[in-house]
Amino acid sequence: MDIVIALFDDFEPLDAIGPYQVLGHLPGAAVRFVAAGEAGPVADSIGGMRLDVPARYADVEACDVLLVPGGHGTRPLMDDQAFLDWLRRTHATTRFTASVCTGALLLGAAGLLDGLAATTHWAAAGELAAFGAAYTPERVVRRDRIVTAAGISAGIDMALHLAALLTDETTARAIQLHAEYDPRPPFDSGSWAKASPAVRERIRELG
Amino acid sequence: MDIVIALFDDFEPLDAIGPYQVLGHLPGAAVRFVAAGEAGPVADSIGGMRLDVPARYADVEACDVLLVPGGHGTRPLMDDQAFLDWLRRTHATTRFTASVCTGALLLGAAGLLDGLAATTHWAAAGELAAFGAAYTPERVVRRDRIVTAAGISAGIDMALHLAALLTDETTARAIQLHAEYDPRPPFDSGSWAKASPAVRERIRELG
Repeated sequence: MDIVIALFDDFEPLDAIGPYQVLGHLPGAAVRFVAAGEAGPVADSIGGMRLDVPARYADVEACDVLLVPGGHGTRPLMDDQAFLDWLRRTHATTRFTASVCTGALLLGAAGLLDGLAATTHWAAAGELAAFGAAYTPERVVRRDRIVTAAGISAGIDMALHLAALLTDETTARAIQLHAEYDPRPPFDSGSWAKASPAVRERIRELG
Repeated sequence: MDIVIALFDDFEPLDAIGPYQVLGHLPGAAVRFVAAGEAGPVADSIGGMRLDVPARYADVEACDVLLVPGGHGTRPLMDDQAFLDWLRRTHATTRFTASVCTGALLLGAAGLLDGLAATTHWAAAGELAAFGAAYTPERVVRRDRIVTAAGISAGIDMALHLAALLTDETTARAIQLHAEYDPRPPFDSGSWAKASPAVRERIRELG
């Protein structure tokens, strides 16, 4: 099983590594990162992490799962016709095409979300409509072969859904147990609806 | 604020990147990875990820937060006296010294957990006792300056605790909102107690 995660400069780190942690443990699966540009170093959006990515997206002609993370680096790619062409061509070969966070905007720009329900990071919800998609405020939204996740950490939940679809539920649960994914956030501010006015103000200051 | 995450070959990816996602967004903080050996490429335990780590641990003399992830790569380091000496010396300079998953075994091997309550990955619980630590089956265990997290994904919860201690609760909640960390695992098998016999059997097969 060939699972491809497209990376680009200024990707949000957990968008990519959360699903990688889950899907990388699927029996019989290989997960590879490909660079949306030339092979070589790719920097994350926080700026402390440099991944050495040995392959470029143009070298991939088909895969079982294509996953597109989000981050500030999605912006320039939304106008990159060669990349969007590749998304469309590769999507035609997959069992599942998935996005995390603002990765959904790239699926949208490629025309893959037209007329579909989909999700993305809460701050980008309004942008999905421009691509003909209906923003759906759920953690994971699946429509046939297209699976979108909400912001950043939602990729972990999505990958567990995918793991069950690609193998079976017992295997997905075993991977959840391996990752000890029994989350206990110390606070309950993980969605816009749950965030207090002070928290909403602070996130604006954090930029 | 200087936050250091020690990396080594065969580290578990989410152990390091979960906390990095949270702590990297702390205002005024810089998170840097350092290699437990020479600077250069460090490979994760799944085998698909190579991080280009520009600094080595020996170059760090002090930091505000020292974080040690887990993974198979902790095994050889448990006998690496130079690395354990560095953990002890650096711990003496920190506000908080933290581990995720089997990173706790490295804090233990360095003598930092003697007589303390601590946690680690469920599969490594029995090993903590050899270092004089009392395994405590909680998601995050803090004793003064030492904070340990359970397996792999628990580092995200721990980092939110640390974020509040290092800044304030409103900032930690804003970072949680940014990461849309409102987890909705599709299954409830994230701890040994919750896993069915079939899931426990499957995880043995996954190795």
